[in-house]
Amino acid sequence: MAITLYWGSGSPFSWRVLLALQYKGLPFDSQLLHFDKQEHQSPQMLKMNPRGRVPVLKDGDYVVFESVAVLYYLDVKYPKPPIFGLTPEEAGVIMRVICEFQSYAEASLQKIVGAVFEGRVDEDIDALTDAMHVVAREARTIEGRLSKEEWIVGANYSATDMVIFPWIQLLRRALNKPVAAPLSGRFLPMERNYPALARWIKRIESLPGYENTYPPHWRDG
Amino acid sequence: MAITLYWGSGSPFSWRVLLALQYKGLPFDSQLLHFDKQEHQSPQMLKMNPRGRVPVLKDGDYVVFESVAVLYYLDVKYPKPPIFGLTPEEAGVIMRVICEFQSYAEASLQKIVGAVFEGRVDEDIDALTDAMHVVAREARTIEGRLSKEEWIVGANYSATDMVIFPWIQLLRRALNKPVAAPLSGRFLPMERNYPALARWIKRIESLPGYENTYPPHWRDG
Repeated sequence: MAITLYWGSGSPFSWRVLLALQYKGLPFDSQLLHFDKQEHQSPQMLKMNPRGRVPVLKDGDYVVFESVAVLYYLDVKYPKPPIFGLTPEEAGVIMRVICEFQSYAEASLQKIVGAVFEGRVDEDIDALTDAMHVVAREARTIEGRLSKEEWIVGANYSATDMVIFPWIQLLRRALNKPVAAPLSGRFLPMERNYPALARWIKRIESLPGYENTYPPHWRDG
Repeated sequence: MAITLYWGSGSPFSWRVLLALQYKGLPFDSQLLHFDKQEHQSPQMLKMNPRGRVPVLKDGDYVVFESVAVLYYLDVKYPKPPIFGLTPEEAGVIMRVICEFQSYAEASLQKIVGAVFEGRVDEDIDALTDAMHVVAREARTIEGRLSKEEWIVGANYSATDMVIFPWIQLLRRALNKPVAAPLSGRFLPMERNYPALARWIKRIESLPGYENTYPPHWRDG
């Protein structure tokens, strides 16, 4: 069956699926949608996902969305190489760390990144500082895992890495903006504050095909 | 291996796992923790889950927490009967509807239930009315699914039903309190507003062993 991926540049949710498709070596038709033209809200897209969000993956006639569900579908359908673990025990930890990231880090990341890109850092500095504390604490836990192993869960690159990596890249990009200066001190430079996380980023950046997953509009500056 | 479940009465997250263990016919040692005595924050519990949250499932020496991860572990370890689908396509929809519920309904449910049980409905009526709109809209989508099939995804009881059911029961319990009167009108009585959901609740309530999953302190009034 032919896979089509509808995605947006810079969407961390889309990036997860690009990483998985690349790792599994699955050929696909890449449909890059332009958020500024509201292409993710077109009638065709709303028919597939009434929420008008990306990524949306179509495999033959089958449609799946919500990034973690897309990763899961791909893994059940195309199991080699596995991204949800080799054993039930590993599967449980992979899903557990994904759930923890979603429950305890993602809302704060969204708040910080949104405020930086919309230039609202000063307006809301107290709430953003709190959000940065939360993110720093969760990053510290992941740093602990990565100081013992090459990947966040166990010996292999997994869905957990794919879920978390795009958010870390997006956070770095946001914190590097001058407007984010009041927030960036406890995170950047990562090489000093989170050396194992920094090495893990380099490890993912050197995976075959990584360049094809990189948000195109980030290259333009 | 011997399974031990650490859980709390009325925790929708714990209830999910109780439903799965019951459905899979897995015997387990039930460790009911008392939130009012902070038993979920004991040194023994914090050693297993540093966040001090339940449910926590121990299987031999292996520990897993975060309710969806526990369901997933159980399904990979003890696959019969399956709760994450019979095909990759079904697996994708099951996980997708779980992700949607977590992303678009859970925070609003938490807000409503928290406010009702803490008697804060009047203080925050505008935000709660908004939250109730969100919940009603998501419930309408699930009602649509259940008006076509017996279970939320496809022909079988699945992890999706187990994830959503405890929250619907908790919401009903909250909305039946007199203090929730300003919020309950668009949801209750469910038999009138959401007839397919009401039938689905009865269907789960008549599953074998359901009584063993019911929050003990709800019986006392």
